[in-house]
Amino acid sequence: VIAPGFTGSPLDRADRLRHDEAALAAVVADPASRLLCEAALDPEVAGDRLVWTGLDALRDGAQPLLLGLIDGVAHFVASHPDDRAAVRTPELMQRLATLRREDAATYAAARSLVDWHARHRFCSVCGNGTHIFRAGWGRHCPVCGADHFPRTDPVVIMIAEHRGRALLGRQPSFPPGRYSALAGFLEPGESIEEAVAREIVEESGIRVGNVRYIASQPWPFPSSLMIACVADAENDDIVLDPHELEDAMWVSREEVRAVLAGEPGRFLAPPPYAIAHTLLTVWAQG
Amino acid sequence: VIAPGFTGSPLDRADRLRHDEAALAAVVADPASRLLCEAALDPEVAGDRLVWTGLDALRDGAQPLLLGLIDGVAHFVASHPDDRAAVRTPELMQRLATLRREDAATYAAARSLVDWHARHRFCSVCGNGTHIFRAGWGRHCPVCGADHFPRTDPVVIMIAEHRGRALLGRQPSFPPGRYSALAGFLEPGESIEEAVAREIVEESGIRVGNVRYIASQPWPFPSSLMIACVADAENDDIVLDPHELEDAMWVSREEVRAVLAGEPGRFLAPPPYAIAHTLLTVWAQG
Repeated sequence: VIAPGFTGSPLDRADRLRHDEAALAAVVADPASRLLCEAALDPEVAGDRLVWTGLDALRDGAQPLLLGLIDGVAHFVASHPDDRAAVRTPELMQRLATLRREDAATYAAARSLVDWHARHRFCSVCGNGTHIFRAGWGRHCPVCGADHFPRTDPVVIMIAEHRGRALLGRQPSFPPGRYSALAGFLEPGESIEEAVAREIVEESGIRVGNVRYIASQPWPFPSSLMIACVADAENDDIVLDPHELEDAMWVSREEVRAVLAGEPGRFLAPPPYAIAHTLLTVWAQG
Repeated sequence: VIAPGFTGSPLDRADRLRHDEAALAAVVADPASRLLCEAALDPEVAGDRLVWTGLDALRDGAQPLLLGLIDGVAHFVASHPDDRAAVRTPELMQRLATLRREDAATYAAARSLVDWHARHRFCSVCGNGTHIFRAGWGRHCPVCGADHFPRTDPVVIMIAEHRGRALLGRQPSFPPGRYSALAGFLEPGESIEEAVAREIVEESGIRVGNVRYIASQPWPFPSSLMIACVADAENDDIVLDPHELEDAMWVSREEVRAVLAGEPGRFLAPPPYAIAHTLLTVWAQG
């Protein structure tokens, strides 16, 4: 079973509650309802669990966003007009790595939603201020009438395969020694398969066909949908795009298996919560 | 080979040209460069082809957006400050259905891009006006410094399968008699597999597992990425969400094959350019 990081939240998103203002007001007033303890999206963690509090802890001016129900209990996160775009620190990533899988996934939903509000207070159509509706799953412009919904950006992340070897690349921003699957944003007017082929040839000069979907993952930095694929390479002569990659190389299944097992090798693997890790694991198993 | 509608454009998106202002100015000035003939995204069509003109036809105040290169020649579409959000008419859909596959795909990219600009003239972070950069593949806010990129919304569209039958539904907005795969927007914090399971149970009360990816398609109304899947249903007692579906039913492979072949049946199939048609075709083949 493939279980990428940031998947497996127990949240029931309870779509009907979002559309029922009276029912929503009742769960907001319910002392059993839970609010995520976070300041600037830096979550409080106890052991491998997120820490939750009652909604009485809501800061002045903050609005509760309904994440959904867990075991029938409403769980919220707060959006405040002073929120700024979220930052990702190595310390945050370390803390998230200590969370059990389902709590990391719930946090991912909360983080993307809060960050979306912080970056979408104004209407992109007319420039006026917007307000929250649907329990936090939309913003409405009272001037031009436009409704805006949380954004999720599809990203393709993929391995090109050539005679039993996989193409890995290194972005300048990676930690020392790390190599990973190539990746890039899917653009309007492309299928997943077309975006995979375009990104690989742009970044590495490798032409591919026969794209196969492997798995997907939400990536809350800030709000991507990572779509992991494998494709067959037609050539193996790498021509780097130096704006995208610092280096790229072909690696064997044996090398990948060893590196994933923590043995020394030519490169360091991506962390377990990244779908590139899942993708390499699946590929290395053949 | 699976070839969904709106895929197969010959465009080379020429990412490097977007980042090279001098090279971009040269292709804008090149009389060989082509501009899509469209008014309010209503494309001119000759036979099964899009009609293109020279860039001298650019309206006053319009800016050329670089779609990419076809056979080495730069192809553009225009964005004008007076553009409004695009509308989709039955006449437009009929015209697009007459286009050869690669021209429909090129139009899809152009339409999503132009419509994105029309709905994103202002900065969602601070409300100020933004301007085009990267040859049309981004907008920059000179006040707060935010960069904005074209939006693509992932949508899951899927068949639940139960003892050889597929679950199809009917939205109130569908043409009379049409049934199709269920569908819905993927939300922040979800994988494709999780979104598929949530949407099916929300709309129909059917619980599913074992989600398999089948194919994808860009859908330019206005800018979705349709992700088509099949999943195994655990139950077959439909409980409709009347806000989403007017009806739903289980159909056999024989019924789907007959309807796709144009024979009379209990329902009408989605049109060939929709990935639901591709999905039903793949499923009916077993």
